[in-house]
Amino acid sequence: MDLDALVGDSCERDWQTVTPQSVDEVRFAVIGLGWFTKGRALPALEESDLCEPSVLVSSSTEKAERVAADTEGASRGITYDEFHDGEARDAYDAVYVVTPNALHLEYVETAADFGKAVLCEKPMERDSERAAKLRDVAADAGIELMIAYRMQTEPTVRRARELIETGYVGEPMSVTGNMSQPLLERIDADPNQWRLDESLAGGGALFDIGIYPLNTARFLLDEDPVAVTGNVSRTHEAFDEVEETVAFSVEFPDEVYAQCYASHNARQSSGITVTGTEGQVRIEPAFFQDQSRQLHVSRGDGRASITVTPVDQMLEEFDYFADRLRGTATLSPDGDHGLVDMRTMEAVYEAAESDRWITME
Amino acid sequence: MDLDALVGDSCERDWQTVTPQSVDEVRFAVIGLGWFTKGRALPALEESDLCEPSVLVSSSTEKAERVAADTEGASRGITYDEFHDGEARDAYDAVYVVTPNALHLEYVETAADFGKAVLCEKPMERDSERAAKLRDVAADAGIELMIAYRMQTEPTVRRARELIETGYVGEPMSVTGNMSQPLLERIDADPNQWRLDESLAGGGALFDIGIYPLNTARFLLDEDPVAVTGNVSRTHEAFDEVEETVAFSVEFPDEVYAQCYASHNARQSSGITVTGTEGQVRIEPAFFQDQSRQLHVSRGDGRASITVTPVDQMLEEFDYFADRLRGTATLSPDGDHGLVDMRTMEAVYEAAESDRWITME
Repeated sequence: MDLDALVGDSCERDWQTVTPQSVDEVRFAVIGLGWFTKGRALPALEESDLCEPSVLVSSSTEKAERVAADTEGASRGITYDEFHDGEARDAYDAVYVVTPNALHLEYVETAADFGKAVLCEKPMERDSERAAKLRDVAADAGIELMIAYRMQTEPTVRRARELIETGYVGEPMSVTGNMSQPLLERIDADPNQWRLDESLAGGGALFDIGIYPLNTARFLLDEDPVAVTGNVSRTHEAFDEVEETVAFSVEFPDEVYAQCYASHNARQSSGITVTGTEGQVRIEPAFFQDQSRQLHVSRGDGRASITVTPVDQMLEEFDYFADRLRGTATLSPDGDHGLVDMRTMEAVYEAAESDRWITME
Repeated sequence: MDLDALVGDSCERDWQTVTPQSVDEVRFAVIGLGWFTKGRALPALEESDLCEPSVLVSSSTEKAERVAADTEGASRGITYDEFHDGEARDAYDAVYVVTPNALHLEYVETAADFGKAVLCEKPMERDSERAAKLRDVAADAGIELMIAYRMQTEPTVRRARELIETGYVGEPMSVTGNMSQPLLERIDADPNQWRLDESLAGGGALFDIGIYPLNTARFLLDEDPVAVTGNVSRTHEAFDEVEETVAFSVEFPDEVYAQCYASHNARQSSGITVTGTEGQVRIEPAFFQDQSRQLHVSRGDGRASITVTPVDQMLEEFDYFADRLRGTATLSPDGDHGLVDMRTMEAVYEAAESDRWITME
């Protein structure tokens, strides 16, 4: 990996092993038809040559059929109950779970019963106990399970990881990462939004967006947390159940520290920086979709800002998942990987309660 | 403050109250002739129309006289002992203390005895007890004391502070700040460098450079720390007495958190970002001299990067100090302000030892 290659081929799918011509499309049941599904996931599945959004699952037949009618490749719209009952189970090969966090487990259980592969949104569940159960259910049934960390198939992040892996920054010394957005504007201040409901979401800004700098730091360093601390805060009354803002610190092996924050009540902003003994790699903007992504690198006397052509992150993720189902290469990130984030985030809350650093087991 | 004004007059000296024509120059005794003094401080004093580097003080007459011969406006080169004995005391009005941290107190004591104003480098001393004594010595003698935080007269930082003060970012929610450099390269890996000696420096990366994001966060928010945590680490054997790297978190009032790090063994890098409910202000590069400074602002759909003409930061600081001595406006930052950093940094070390958050008294 050098900068020439980086500029020349920054969006390369370095993971691709199969071609659309050589394999059958993966037909998805899509569980949960919220704004993210309609705005992001379904357009990507429509666009994909490896995937098809065959069966759409929602709270009512009417809603499911209405969205299905607008979705190219969708043959059925069914209810959650019908899904559990096995309706249309021959019409899909895999299940994409994009419900509120606390409902992930039940859909993975049903998918496991039917022997279907699962792509499950992050965070895995509302707590680590349920996340561990989710992982075990998939393992016991022998189904493939991938947690939907779209940053791990985002080309800019992959190029940054390669740079770090090949020594561009020397020894990594420090990470800073952040993600913030005015959530209440995005959800039209709907107090019933599940992200504001502790029993459905499990957590607030940390679970919803703080997981981006956390997981991307893990991915860039290829290491898992050793210890964490953090604090949560809230200034707006809408955040009476889950935290509005979180500042947290993660110790990685070799005493590399990541300093992170996330807020649901701040200017939209996102970035991640890895500084090493020799150089620095920074992605900013980093985590929101539809933004031109920039990779800022510096080493010695030189610095460069490389604009990476935006890709459809959901398309990359779905195609990667399909590639791994249809090919023979190993699928990642798996349930064990997702569970590390769950336990790390819970440790941040524990640290915030106790004003301590919490060591990860 | 709006962006028009910012671009049009970004280097304005908004603090200036006297003119060189209307007042006598402030003649300095400069205590300590290391690379920072020779490379940064003396050139600024030579350049200034409000200051004069009259008396240079070092370990030997030979060195002091040699540097004085090369310094425009310097009339004498004397030893530390001679300074304490009152040699040439009629030839200076103020004392600039730029020795290793642990020696600050003794020179301030002598300056106080002689009724001379003091500009004292940061951190104030090697520990908060001595720093408190330094402050008291100055107060008891009724001399002016300013701690040399050059960021507080750096135009880019002052413009950022005005933007925040006038509500550009809305309510500040979060700060991130960092400063790192490969110290061993800068000092030619000299193991006798005082910055590596705990008894002279008091601390490592935190005391020497972590103090920049810490103090600049305080200045930008116009608030003082409520609680802190942090961790220190070392990978290079040269850092056997003081820490090489520090990651620390500072809680400010209203639950605003600053996530900071500093390293003496990482790529040169510096930046500070304040993210609020409505917008963001980021300075990068932020803290090293001789770099073109950029102020990155965003709010609503807009973002702009404003390149601020580099100024001589030491000249700004010396002229501000002289302006306050010759005029009637109040001098800041004073000893109380500097002492807050000393106590905050010691609390970071205490936190690192105990894996806790430490509440500031």
